[in-house]
Amino acid sequence: MGNRVVVIGANAAGMSAASQAKRVNPELEVVVLEKSPYISYGECGMPYYIGGIIDNAKKLFVLSVEAAREKRGIDVRINNEVTGIDVNKKELTVVDRETGRGEYKQPYDRLVIATGARSVRLKLPGSELENIFHLKFFDDAQRIVNFIDSEKPKRVVVIGAGYIGLEMTENLRHRGIEVSVVEMLPTVMGATEPDVHEVILSELKRNGVEVMLETRVEGYRGSDGRVRYVVTDRGEIEADFVLESVGIVPETTLAGEAGVRLGSKRGIVVDEYMRTNISDVFSAGDCAEIRHVVSGEYVYIPLALNANRGGRYAGNNAAVGLSRGGDKFGDAPLEGYMKFPGTLGSAVAKIFDVEVGKVGLSSVDAGRLGYDFVSATIKSKTKAGYWPKHPDITLTLIADRKTRKLLGAQLAGGSGAALRIDTLAVTLFNGMTVDEIKEMDLAYAPPFAPSWDPVLIAAGVVAKKL
Amino acid sequence: MGNRVVVIGANAAGMSAASQAKRVNPELEVVVLEKSPYISYGECGMPYYIGGIIDNAKKLFVLSVEAAREKRGIDVRINNEVTGIDVNKKELTVVDRETGRGEYKQPYDRLVIATGARSVRLKLPGSELENIFHLKFFDDAQRIVNFIDSEKPKRVVVIGAGYIGLEMTENLRHRGIEVSVVEMLPTVMGATEPDVHEVILSELKRNGVEVMLETRVEGYRGSDGRVRYVVTDRGEIEADFVLESVGIVPETTLAGEAGVRLGSKRGIVVDEYMRTNISDVFSAGDCAEIRHVVSGEYVYIPLALNANRGGRYAGNNAAVGLSRGGDKFGDAPLEGYMKFPGTLGSAVAKIFDVEVGKVGLSSVDAGRLGYDFVSATIKSKTKAGYWPKHPDITLTLIADRKTRKLLGAQLAGGSGAALRIDTLAVTLFNGMTVDEIKEMDLAYAPPFAPSWDPVLIAAGVVAKKL
Repeated sequence: MGNRVVVIGANAAGMSAASQAKRVNPELEVVVLEKSPYISYGECGMPYYIGGIIDNAKKLFVLSVEAAREKRGIDVRINNEVTGIDVNKKELTVVDRETGRGEYKQPYDRLVIATGARSVRLKLPGSELENIFHLKFFDDAQRIVNFIDSEKPKRVVVIGAGYIGLEMTENLRHRGIEVSVVEMLPTVMGATEPDVHEVILSELKRNGVEVMLETRVEGYRGSDGRVRYVVTDRGEIEADFVLESVGIVPETTLAGEAGVRLGSKRGIVVDEYMRTNISDVFSAGDCAEIRHVVSGEYVYIPLALNANRGGRYAGNNAAVGLSRGGDKFGDAPLEGYMKFPGTLGSAVAKIFDVEVGKVGLSSVDAGRLGYDFVSATIKSKTKAGYWPKHPDITLTLIADRKTRKLLGAQLAGGSGAALRIDTLAVTLFNGMTVDEIKEMDLAYAPPFAPSWDPVLIAAGVVAKKL
Repeated sequence: MGNRVVVIGANAAGMSAASQAKRVNPELEVVVLEKSPYISYGECGMPYYIGGIIDNAKKLFVLSVEAAREKRGIDVRINNEVTGIDVNKKELTVVDRETGRGEYKQPYDRLVIATGARSVRLKLPGSELENIFHLKFFDDAQRIVNFIDSEKPKRVVVIGAGYIGLEMTENLRHRGIEVSVVEMLPTVMGATEPDVHEVILSELKRNGVEVMLETRVEGYRGSDGRVRYVVTDRGEIEADFVLESVGIVPETTLAGEAGVRLGSKRGIVVDEYMRTNISDVFSAGDCAEIRHVVSGEYVYIPLALNANRGGRYAGNNAAVGLSRGGDKFGDAPLEGYMKFPGTLGSAVAKIFDVEVGKVGLSSVDAGRLGYDFVSATIKSKTKAGYWPKHPDITLTLIADRKTRKLLGAQLAGGSGAALRIDTLAVTLFNGMTVDEIKEMDLAYAPPFAPSWDPVLIAAGVVAKKL
């Protein structure tokens, strides 16, 4: 067997995979094929670039093509789009728009698919109108920046109140734009626990954002080819432009055509070694479904760290043991394979002055999965009560009635709230019961926490309720 | 057996014990004897009261005597000093200076000793001079505030660069006072890892604080009965007043005289149920030595949360199973006893704009205990590199070469650094290896962390080094 690892996609997962493959075995030939002109940039920073918090787009770019080539020895090819995968010949069809050589064949010994995801685009009456934006790639961000800079819009409708929708809401407010948020579901940010939800909603209102829940978008109306109104089942809303932020879907068309098994969300199914069902084909990042640590089920949770982590495993495992052919989902792992421990869906976001965090299962997840659970919410402070500023924190814990183990947590609060999610993430990784959690020795000093940290208080309340 | 629990001491441990005893069994008679006029106040807030950050002393007082009596049903008696413990008669000798009844006998069925600690006072030539202060109790704090308000001192020498010494240094600078810190040891804040130490020292210098390490105080010189110079083995330092902050020792004279077993630091030795060697005598808080989660050894780590936690266990276990007599260190635990999981010495402190944290063993501890360990330090950021403010964080991890388990961690950094100690505390509670730690799913968003949290990066570096 040869020594060539080819990676499709040069963002978080792809470049993590390529870098790790080179780290594991510097002798390998590692090729990365990227259809856009960009590699390795901070997608999570884009809302803040649009809002002007990050003043220069260059800051989002972590690694240049030159540095990837020269310092890491990775053969990165931008503007090289993969148009076909032949898993029998172990060969890709690539169209090179960078050098002008056009279509060529790229053989691989091992392949890592890190094609990421794309924005969902609504197909509604009026969808063809101008000034309906999406945000997934850097070009999207630049398009929005250019539009705002040149057109000075006054009103936007953000469709979808997920993480990106709300981060964009904040940043569009920074730019002085009136924002209406339209969300089909009864809650913002997915399945959000009621007390946490209330905190987020009130922060949005405090910042002059109109939030319309359980509202369905039916189409757009415009004039001169440009969008003017968003038509909903609760009436029309005026808009100088629209941000459709209704989720992303895995970019897996090519993989699916090549016979790679896709899951219920159309993400690539990988085992804990990031192997697909096809020999020598690995996958990671926003195109893959991965195992949830708490529930054990395969989930589609496209988050930056999951992409970085998964990419590293895929790159590692693609690189080691290249001498054995035919290594796929279900085969015994090779020596040196790294086992991915799964995801907890750990996520934090800043919504104006409120820090929001989630980890593990929501009560909706827990119900769907058949857990007999209890949840409890506490309201406490992120700092000592006598500290001059001691912001509120609302923390909901969800625990299994039978095993008394924590299943998940959600919080919203002021400065210092968010990082409590990491503390809770470690408890979930270790399958701790709420009885164990309430007895932990967490650090205390007045500027950082009350003497009983909110995590300890909440665990105590749940334990009592159980 | 009766139903009276008596607690000596009405601060963190004592009032936690009393409250928990009442919670467990509201029928109990719970008496708390406190020699000072104060109960339940935030000692950790006192430096900030002195510095004017906390504007009103009343904010430090968490619970009034009236509330303790009326809402919690606890018979709190302030200005009641215990002068003797007779463990055979199960009776205390108490001097009541509150009501004027003088000495009386107070019988108990179960006793919780929560006598706390007192400041070490240097005995040196000139120690009798005025304006040499200590800080342990509220009266100490008020004395310092009164002195600064009335005398407007310009220069202070702080002797001892522990947590309190440095928090006081910051707060005295807030009051516009020039501060010299004299420390006998080569490091501030005890056994601090070199890279973390460097960050703290440079923050102190940046704030105009003179730090003299490895400097021994030999005495004081004064005029008109007031201190004027601190005499050290490196020369004399001018001072309008002095803060001796050279540590605290457990207040265990009475307990020792009564036959309660003391440990190597003269703290009361308790088992994991907070029982002493004497039947029906429990102890918790700054007067007790407790088990360290990592090393298993008995340690004297007087911290607020340990006092709150330990007090709760002592109160719980004193209250349950009162029907059985003679329950002491080593006896089988009774039904309903809560087992104290021990301490990790989790501690954080703000030193000007730097957040400092420690948890678990230092490399000095690890060496002394005979671990074959490695340590590694990383320098990273507390937020994404493209976030407008992304403060530095320096994080040192110490791991066991044989088991690859984390043994301890220390950090210093800007805003957002400190709470990482809690994340690491949970890993230590669970005995996680650095290989496991580096694979955790921690939450990421640009305002809160780099996409690879410093904790993950540091664990990866240690794992590689192992």
